[in-house]
Amino acid sequence: MSDLFDILIIMGSDSDWEVMREAAVLLDRFGVRYTARVTSAHRTPEKTLSIIRQAESNQCRVIIAGAGAAAHLAGVVAGHSLLPVIAVPLNATSLQGLDALLATVQMPAGIPVACMAIGKAGAANAALFALQILAVARPEITVRLADYRRQMIQGVENKDQHLQEQLHQRE
Amino acid sequence: MSDLFDILIIMGSDSDWEVMREAAVLLDRFGVRYTARVTSAHRTPEKTLSIIRQAESNQCRVIIAGAGAAAHLAGVVAGHSLLPVIAVPLNATSLQGLDALLATVQMPAGIPVACMAIGKAGAANAALFALQILAVARPEITVRLADYRRQMIQGVENKDQHLQEQLHQRE
Amino acid sequence: MSDLFDILIIMGSDSDWEVMREAAVLLDRFGVRYTARVTSAHRTPEKTLSIIRQAESNQCRVIIAGAGAAAHLAGVVAGHSLLPVIAVPLNATSLQGLDALLATVQMPAGIPVACMAIGKAGAANAALFALQILAVARPEITVRLADYRRQMIQGVENKDQHLQEQLHQRE
Amino acid sequence: MSDLFDILIIMGSDSDWEVMREAAVLLDRFGVRYTARVTSAHRTPEKTLSIIRQAESNQCRVIIAGAGAAAHLAGVVAGHSLLPVIAVPLNATSLQGLDALLATVQMPAGIPVACMAIGKAGAANAALFALQILAVARPEITVRLADYRRQMIQGVENKDQHLQEQLHQRE
Amino acid sequence: MSDLFDILIIMGSDSDWEVMREAAVLLDRFGVRYTARVTSAHRTPEKTLSIIRQAESNQCRVIIAGAGAAAHLAGVVAGHSLLPVIAVPLNATSLQGLDALLATVQMPAGIPVACMAIGKAGAANAALFALQILAVARPEITVRLADYRRQMIQGVENKDQHLQEQLHQRE
Amino acid sequence: MSDLFDILIIMGSDSDWEVMREAAVLLDRFGVRYTARVTSAHRTPEKTLSIIRQAESNQCRVIIAGAGAAAHLAGVVAGHSLLPVIAVPLNATSLQGLDALLATVQMPAGIPVACMAIGKAGAANAALFALQILAVARPEITVRLADYRRQMIQGVENKDQHLQEQLHQRE
Amino acid sequence: MSDLFDILIIMGSDSDWEVMREAAVLLDRFGVRYTARVTSAHRTPEKTLSIIRQAESNQCRVIIAGAGAAAHLAGVVAGHSLLPVIAVPLNATSLQGLDALLATVQMPAGIPVACMAIGKAGAANAALFALQILAVARPEITVRLADYRRQMIQGVENKDQHLQEQLHQRE
Amino acid sequence: MSDLFDILIIMGSDSDWEVMREAAVLLDRFGVRYTARVTSAHRTPEKTLSIIRQAESNQCRVIIAGAGAAAHLAGVVAGHSLLPVIAVPLNATSLQGLDALLATVQMPAGIPVACMAIGKAGAANAALFALQILAVARPEITVRLADYRRQMIQGVENKDQHLQEQLHQRE
Repeated sequence: MSDLFDILIIMGSDSDWEVMREAAVLLDRFGVRYTARVTSAHRTPEKTLSIIRQAESNQCRVIIAGAGAAAHLAGVVAGHSLLPVIAVPLNATSLQGLDALLATVQMPAGIPVACMAIGKAGAANAALFALQILAVARPEITVRLADYRRQMIQGVENKDQHLQEQLHQRE
Repeated sequence: MSDLFDILIIMGSDSDWEVMREAAVLLDRFGVRYTARVTSAHRTPEKTLSIIRQAESNQCRVIIAGAGAAAHLAGVVAGHSLLPVIAVPLNATSLQGLDALLATVQMPAGIPVACMAIGKAGAANAALFALQILAVARPEITVRLADYRRQMIQGVENKDQHLQEQLHQRE
Repeated sequence: MSDLFDILIIMGSDSDWEVMREAAVLLDRFGVRYTARVTSAHRTPEKTLSIIRQAESNQCRVIIAGAGAAAHLAGVVAGHSLLPVIAVPLNATSLQGLDALLATVQMPAGIPVACMAIGKAGAANAALFALQILAVARPEITVRLADYRRQMIQGVENKDQHLQEQLHQRE
Repeated sequence: MSDLFDILIIMGSDSDWEVMREAAVLLDRFGVRYTARVTSAHRTPEKTLSIIRQAESNQCRVIIAGAGAAAHLAGVVAGHSLLPVIAVPLNATSLQGLDALLATVQMPAGIPVACMAIGKAGAANAALFALQILAVARPEITVRLADYRRQMIQGVENKDQHLQEQLHQRE
Repeated sequence: MSDLFDILIIMGSDSDWEVMREAAVLLDRFGVRYTARVTSAHRTPEKTLSIIRQAESNQCRVIIAGAGAAAHLAGVVAGHSLLPVIAVPLNATSLQGLDALLATVQMPAGIPVACMAIGKAGAANAALFALQILAVARPEITVRLADYRRQMIQGVENKDQHLQEQLHQRE
Repeated sequence: MSDLFDILIIMGSDSDWEVMREAAVLLDRFGVRYTARVTSAHRTPEKTLSIIRQAESNQCRVIIAGAGAAAHLAGVVAGHSLLPVIAVPLNATSLQGLDALLATVQMPAGIPVACMAIGKAGAANAALFALQILAVARPEITVRLADYRRQMIQGVENKDQHLQEQLHQRE
Repeated sequence: MSDLFDILIIMGSDSDWEVMREAAVLLDRFGVRYTARVTSAHRTPEKTLSIIRQAESNQCRVIIAGAGAAAHLAGVVAGHSLLPVIAVPLNATSLQGLDALLATVQMPAGIPVACMAIGKAGAANAALFALQILAVARPEITVRLADYRRQMIQGVENKDQHLQEQLHQRE
Repeated sequence: MSDLFDILIIMGSDSDWEVMREAAVLLDRFGVRYTARVTSAHRTPEKTLSIIRQAESNQCRVIIAGAGAAAHLAGVVAGHSLLPVIAVPLNATSLQGLDALLATVQMPAGIPVACMAIGKAGAANAALFALQILAVARPEITVRLADYRRQMIQGVENKDQHLQEQLHQRE
């Protein structure tokens, strides 16, 4: 754990990893150093604080926090650090993530949290947004982000092509 | 601040006092010792923790926490203390308290928070519920609570009487 | 039924037991006496009242009520007793528990109900909150609650450890 | 109070009278006997029950219940009586009546409550629906309801006429 | 179709029958004559009107209408008839019946619709409420409704007994 | 009323005119013939039908319907006509137009209604969308629509300019 | 792709085709020329713009756009074209299409989008509404739409017949 | 406009400036260069694109976008740029900002937008979050952010002090 990393991914429960791994996969793909930790804003507040301090001293630049239900993790982290905190509200109760979304996004003035979409789309975008933040200081990441977008555009192109073919075969 | 008190009322902002004073008024009426503090889960996490510790060493038995928006105060307090925490979600944003309600009530298993109604009704009930908790160890409070209910019943009786009179005058 | 118990768990239907048993399991673990009853605020109001009165004469200290849909059980109980009432809104309709939540938490001033989260997390927390209430008069429960939290912290610690190992194996 | 009446209007608070009077005004207009009472499902459950029993022995045929917040009044009444109960959810909290609506309409199978719209429209319709129920046994009420609809149609006709005139004057 | 019936059950689609049959089963049990028809407020407005007129001339006393999505059926029927109309909002879209509920319950002043809960609980209660309406003119139905409630109470009693036994076996 | 018109604006109540006039103002500006009528889906179903038939025989091409609460007007009209129906849900209850929106937009397959935004923005867009429909057969309207957009762009340009000036004066 | 077509169906992802094909099936049935394309408002804005321009030069008259989540596709298209744009909000996240609905229907004044119901019902209605628009210039489509409605009415008739038979067999 | 700036604030309408100025005030206080522009995703898509391109060539590092209703501005900008985009959903319709929130936060995977709270709190936090991003490359901003937090903590301290004094005067 004494290794340096750029991005810290934390989540309230290990069952959240299934969703949050979307972020990790993208960071792997971009070759950016990260670590992932399980800690709960409510159950382990001291551990949460110690993970934040450790991250800060390991030159971490961005924190990504995923949590469900009355999702306080991102807000608590943001209250303890000046690093940018990106939040992923998770669908963990019968309210389908609406509870986590409102508990995350409606932060009071003074302590910002950058809220992404509920669930996997949000986890993926948290990684991309973290990369956009890192890119402010490391222009080579912008180059790779542009490349990533080109591939995404190509992906849509392929799907569009595929639909065209399906439609023509019908005729 | 070195005085003992049974109940601690905390709130995220001094503008919340207008609502939370409903709790204080009731505690005054029951002659139960309390103190009220302003502290924010996000802006002043250390102060929040020190207020909790101080309350615990001042023999506080119940904590009432009022907060709006992404209302994390009660949850954060509950994560740091074994005292029962009663929460009052406040209507502080355009979402009319729905955000504070969901951010407060949907606590994950392990760290309970007792959520009351949004706003003034919730603040009054937080005080009454705190008194019901104290009454577990102090039976004389139950006597006073029974008296309070009798007055409440009499209040409804009077309003009913008044409506009957209005209706009869109409005829 | 003539046995004394500290906590009464009531629910509107026997199908609610699957959720409410989360509370019972925790009370068993803490060795606190409880009983569990099926009674409906709407279908069996007299039975509900008689269960409350029996509980009161059996030295019950806290009532936990679970109900779904237009969940009135906790409110009705609170209107008939001065004991603290903890409510667990249940997800029993297509509205996913939002109906039960609002029907439970938005109690008018004067008759408090302590609302927990929807479903199993809420049932578990209802038990823990009831224990926190009992602890006001029985300090040994606080000791056991502190122990329970330590185990919970250890649980998070283990999950975190496990995730670290997974991540390192990847590399 | 020993007078006979066909319809009982009850409400949780005298402040609800401003809305519930919409029902009374219509019943006055139709010359149907009613009485209006203030009683709370939570604060005065015994009084509520005694009002129901009194109504039943005074040949009351329909009960109209208006309540806000965690609106339990109609459900509680329906659980204690076989008379048809019509409910008017009231906008009494920051959640704008959505809480009262869900607490009223989502009744479990077995104890029906007929839910009207939130607020004044609901109060007026509660009276009209009560009249439609009475009309099952008293055909002359149907005649008067038909007359009322004709006037309503004429009212729309007049408003339409008025708009036509406005539009033509513009030209 | 020339037979007389007391209650008309209509629904927007034959797929609604699975839910609406809950009403039919109860009416069968009470031995009350009813008929059930498929007709859509939007797709077959003329058929809807002709079914209403036929019902009126067949001495129908109450109409029960089940519909999902932008559920207009009950409102349209209520606009065309002076018979009491009971509505069952159905869960037929991804919005889980919230759309049908609001489209049904929020009727404007002048044209009342008696809204029940979403889905099967609502369908069963629609039948019971229709029976309560019929009972205004036919007291023998009240006797059977009282009997039905006694059985319901016995049902809760049995479930409660069963839970007690389960709990004692545990010990 | 024997005059021909391209667009019919109907609304459930004359109080809706304040909002629906936004549509009329735009149609006036484009010089397109319209008429506006008050009629209610529930209170005056026959009148509604006769207005539709009259519009059809007067060469009306598009119907715009504004309604609040359980807003059925557009759906009812769409069920009776093959003309394109554009709906404007209105904010007429404590639910802020959410009821009207869901009652309008969630039409079942087979009877389309084109739903606009709640309130004045929706009324203005209903007119613009009606013009886009007319433009399918009358290309000169497209020219005028293009002109309208240019003015709108100029309006944004002016506001942007104005903000720039404000900002520079600050410096 | 150089062929002319009357209607363009676009969607944000090829997984949306399962829903949007409901529109295509209907257009096939009516023999109206259309094409279907995959393009994303966010991922491929340039491609989206080029598809619009191509459609305009291929005499396309109506654009149907399906999108989920923060569904911007229809709004973006409407901002770039004067053709009528019909939107189908899709259920693509844990919020069940409520997000897509609000992101689609609440367009600001000036740029109209015609919003249909969430999901398949909306896709089918988008096609029917597009046909109603085309019918303004091509009266023969109205004839076929009338025929389609007759078949729909017959379908309801058959289902009603079927239910009658089921009910009679029961007896 | 040829001046360099670090942060671009854009908004859909000049009436949004009242809210978005909260961001500007904070940036002024931190002495960070910004510019503010009015442009609409729907009404002026070309202008929006040209403002983005201009910002990119003026060394802008972060874009803050405020929009209400079907708030697409931030998403559209994020689709056209690799700069980090921070969004402020605005309360501009009867749905109180819930529409803007869902239209903003639920971005699909691939194009991230960092969503803040609805309204003024969100605008202030957008500025603070932008500063946290800039601080990744400019450590002196972190120093000033720490200072800002200290003042915020002092502000809470003062309010708490003030409440203590009020409470003591009461006694």
